[in-house]
Amino acid sequence: MGERIGFIGLGIMGRPMARNLLAAGFQVTVHSRSPGPVEELVAAGAAPADRAAEVARAVDVVITMLPDTPDVESVLLGSGGVLEGVAEGSLVIDMSSIDPIATRRFAEAFAERSVAMLDAPVSGGEKGAIDAALSIMVGGEEEAFARAQPVFQALGSNIVHVGPSGAGQIAKACNQLVVAATIEAVAEALLLAERAGVDPASVRQALLGGFAGSKILEVHGQRMLDRAFSPGFRILLHRKDARIVQDTAAAVGAPIPSFDVVTAQLQRAVDAGDGESDHSALFAELERE
Amino acid sequence: MGERIGFIGLGIMGRPMARNLLAAGFQVTVHSRSPGPVEELVAAGAAPADRAAEVARAVDVVITMLPDTPDVESVLLGSGGVLEGVAEGSLVIDMSSIDPIATRRFAEAFAERSVAMLDAPVSGGEKGAIDAALSIMVGGEEEAFARAQPVFQALGSNIVHVGPSGAGQIAKACNQLVVAATIEAVAEALLLAERAGVDPASVRQALLGGFAGSKILEVHGQRMLDRAFSPGFRILLHRKDARIVQDTAAAVGAPIPSFDVVTAQLQRAVDAGDGESDHSALFAELERE
Repeated sequence: MGERIGFIGLGIMGRPMARNLLAAGFQVTVHSRSPGPVEELVAAGAAPADRAAEVARAVDVVITMLPDTPDVESVLLGSGGVLEGVAEGSLVIDMSSIDPIATRRFAEAFAERSVAMLDAPVSGGEKGAIDAALSIMVGGEEEAFARAQPVFQALGSNIVHVGPSGAGQIAKACNQLVVAATIEAVAEALLLAERAGVDPASVRQALLGGFAGSKILEVHGQRMLDRAFSPGFRILLHRKDARIVQDTAAAVGAPIPSFDVVTAQLQRAVDAGDGESDHSALFAELERE
Repeated sequence: MGERIGFIGLGIMGRPMARNLLAAGFQVTVHSRSPGPVEELVAAGAAPADRAAEVARAVDVVITMLPDTPDVESVLLGSGGVLEGVAEGSLVIDMSSIDPIATRRFAEAFAERSVAMLDAPVSGGEKGAIDAALSIMVGGEEEAFARAQPVFQALGSNIVHVGPSGAGQIAKACNQLVVAATIEAVAEALLLAERAGVDPASVRQALLGGFAGSKILEVHGQRMLDRAFSPGFRILLHRKDARIVQDTAAAVGAPIPSFDVVTAQLQRAVDAGDGESDHSALFAELERE
């Protein structure tokens, strides 16, 4: 290939993703708020840059992997940000999970400079990032998606071009809606069994083979039985994603009556001090009721 | 083997189940409210009986497969019912989906006559019944469960002894909770995608591989995309099962905040005239909002 890649945001997800790009043979320039992860990646062969604009100047493809919408906005469009340094014909790929409507706005700002932008949020967690086995949900133009393929191939396994700009973030919002609602349903069912004097492990087993079967019942159901709530995916992050779901649903007029209750449960779990626990701790929140 | 079996209730599920018992070589005596299904089974080799008590007199194992708790109560304990005709040492297996607390009461009534009773509700629908591939969730004593094994083997594939009397019905209630809640979550997600201008089929595809993946997203998600709402499993029956979940949860003090909303959605669908549609028509209910 020969595309030079910039990677901004070396958190729990970004660190192994940047490593996988190096392993795939890409030249990678990195930037992050904390110096530790930068040093780690530099030791693995990456070049460091002090500001986002500098990263953009040095590469062909800029990837961002940041916590929330304001972080992405600041790194892309803020002072010293990507937009200041990016050259015409470059490609920006935001792999954070952020607001779909804001995403479209960012993409338009880059389009005015003839820079393509893809939204490409992921699921699969830290393990998926380490194993280069992420699911990647992509929004943006076909041409940009095709150009990004070698990059995505180095990071994930299930790569779907969902639609135009913002479609990747919409798909991620849908994903987070279904995941949290299914966790809540499994929690309600297993606690119902337990309070009715029936072994919840046997109930989980009986349900796994039929229509109630899901990845969540399998993995998070077992976590509930074991009260194994170390993350995994933190309640606090899922609460953030729930806000994105609610904002998007409100903006487009989509009813989400059951997810509104799930969001309230996530908030109660945060309020109760479980924000740093895995999202399967929705079970613990229910147990307190 | 050599047990003579009575089968009471020849509806959509009972008919193919009784046929599978005949096919497995059992002697089967049948009884049902409507004569048509009885004639059909008699033509296939079953003996007819006019009353439930008569069935009980003629056999070693009595199976009931009826719509709701009052039907089972009437057939088991009512005038001319199973309890009137049943001999000491017989086995009663109720495979209907009914109230777990009522089930325990019925089992006690039979225990007083030295008759064992199992609750053994199923999932898998008409197709599972025809293919002898039902999931069977069993509550009751180990000895009775062991005795019933040849019968269950002729009817289903995933057979789990969940616990003591009532445990099968509790597991079924948990199953119906998770199934309806997951259908509602998938409906909310796919409608959110559609209203946000993103192809819901692509979103379903993107979600299938990850933690949002489930049998429901696969099967019922596709039904929603196709607006294919002919049952399947009718909303009206799921509304009935939702009542069982709510009654049980209230009786044992288990919180079901998200399922309460799902139950309200089922009721709205019934009120809107969708009672005879498949439960994936929760999507249609949402679309009206």
